[in-house]
Amino acid sequence: MASENKSWVTAADVARLAGVSRSAVSRTFTPGASVSEPTRQKVMAAASELGYQVNIIARTMITGNSNFVGIITAGFDNPFRSKLLAPLVHHLALQGFIPLLMNADDPQQLEPSLRQLLSYHVTGVIITSGAPPLSLAKEYLAKKIPVMLINRHAELPGADRICSDNAQGAKLIAAIFSEQDLQRLAFIGEEAENFSTWQRWQAFREQAPQTIALFCPRGGYQAGWDAAAKLLADYPDLQGIFCATDMLAMGTLDYLRQHPAFSAIKVAGFDDIPQAAFAAYQLTTIQQDTDKLAQLAVHSLLERLKNFAQPSQQKSVPVTLIRRYSA
Amino acid sequence: MASENKSWVTAADVARLAGVSRSAVSRTFTPGASVSEPTRQKVMAAASELGYQVNIIARTMITGNSNFVGIITAGFDNPFRSKLLAPLVHHLALQGFIPLLMNADDPQQLEPSLRQLLSYHVTGVIITSGAPPLSLAKEYLAKKIPVMLINRHAELPGADRICSDNAQGAKLIAAIFSEQDLQRLAFIGEEAENFSTWQRWQAFREQAPQTIALFCPRGGYQAGWDAAAKLLADYPDLQGIFCATDMLAMGTLDYLRQHPAFSAIKVAGFDDIPQAAFAAYQLTTIQQDTDKLAQLAVHSLLERLKNFAQPSQQKSVPVTLIRRYSA
Repeated sequence: MASENKSWVTAADVARLAGVSRSAVSRTFTPGASVSEPTRQKVMAAASELGYQVNIIARTMITGNSNFVGIITAGFDNPFRSKLLAPLVHHLALQGFIPLLMNADDPQQLEPSLRQLLSYHVTGVIITSGAPPLSLAKEYLAKKIPVMLINRHAELPGADRICSDNAQGAKLIAAIFSEQDLQRLAFIGEEAENFSTWQRWQAFREQAPQTIALFCPRGGYQAGWDAAAKLLADYPDLQGIFCATDMLAMGTLDYLRQHPAFSAIKVAGFDDIPQAAFAAYQLTTIQQDTDKLAQLAVHSLLERLKNFAQPSQQKSVPVTLIRRYSA
Repeated sequence: MASENKSWVTAADVARLAGVSRSAVSRTFTPGASVSEPTRQKVMAAASELGYQVNIIARTMITGNSNFVGIITAGFDNPFRSKLLAPLVHHLALQGFIPLLMNADDPQQLEPSLRQLLSYHVTGVIITSGAPPLSLAKEYLAKKIPVMLINRHAELPGADRICSDNAQGAKLIAAIFSEQDLQRLAFIGEEAENFSTWQRWQAFREQAPQTIALFCPRGGYQAGWDAAAKLLADYPDLQGIFCATDMLAMGTLDYLRQHPAFSAIKVAGFDDIPQAAFAAYQLTTIQQDTDKLAQLAVHSLLERLKNFAQPSQQKSVPVTLIRRYSA
């Protein structure tokens, strides 16, 4: 049983060198399988010494399962989505999954790309905010491929949802506005159909029913700037503005700064992107826990892989008020 | 030859419905293969109607080639790398490649992830700036897997390099400083071993030999802030500061702003990340053409796939001066 003459190192070789069972080797290389840390380390050391590589393509042929998980996202230059991407890749890798990245910004490519995902027998799909219509989620679910939605709304049987607690965040902002006795308030959102914008607006309006709302045709810095210009032209005596995202808030802040008459207006955002902490903004905002969102998405995926038929789950992730200078 | 009884739609079925040859179907689904646009459209329409999916896993087993291209990057929350990621995914998808995303920030995961890339028979690997040591590039090259380096230095036979023209950018900044007759200049870079920092510094120093240089242990906004504080403590009469990245420049600008005595100092950056255009910064900078960098990386990959033995190529991408308020 010497391995010298073998051109391909097998799991049995690794088990022998590591002094563990063949099954322990298999479990070490199977996403989500249980294996003790000392065993895992022995296996990895032996695998490394022997140059063992799991023949994943072959395993996929045999079991019908791959280690691929599609991440479908849009707006790579949106700092919040970039911030979410790193922990998603991290938590997927911890479970042995490899992320296949799909850019939903690119309508011309999206359809062939999504078809490709199917041909690679993806184990699951994670759809983040800003990604395309949910008809495709239905297509995956029809093929019994788990679908995880992050910060998206959908009543899709079989799809699991992980969302930041938007209502909690909106209430926290309403509370600090109220504490400073700000009366004349406005809300700037992305388009009203946007799930996060809508949840934040609903909860804020409950706390401050007189709030004026303005929904932009799209998100981003320039949209915030334009919305602020429009709002202030109609309501020059506003005291506080709650923006549905930090990008909108930064555009709003920069517009206000150009007009000394508006310098006292308080502004708050939502997301806590890295730029919110820059000295030029010092933005009071609601921090989304991107690590927890990613971790729960991967955790829910593992649960659904064990039992595809279980009812849809919805998990809510608490948010944190980050108080800075802008409000 | 009716297809009604087949459980799996074949390429021959698609060819028949599209009225094209079997080979045309194959070429339509092969990255980099030549096929006319009308033919491609006929094939895609027929494939869509029949629900045809290339069985890529099976094809990989047979040919040993996959459509996977690994993207190894670090610093997802670095806006320049996020800006580069979107066109990379786009140009890979145009050629039928699927990007496997590897996060080099995560040393604990990187090694198993890179081993996984090998087990997936990746067709090529693209390593971007900020990614890990190049020993792994050698490992890929030894297995005849093409390696593309973007904005990285390496004398690796077989690896191709695509770089922004750092020298041109540094000269453009030196010229506008000179045009404003700024005499006392400083340069703030990332660590001196960083390839882009080093190229920018070398070219800038040639134009302005008296420039004081400060290299930070790492990049980013806070590093720029700290470097500016250190520089100005020693050289309070500086007139112009060239920062090797926009993130360093934004930290520098915000530090200067806190000190009215320094308000006349001109600052320039490099990259042209979206935030450079924000009203709070209005940063004069050098725009890297991320679309062209990505396009050339994918193009070089296709060339090397046709002829792995060809000599290493180096391609330089022109940059553009974006003149704003900060300098």
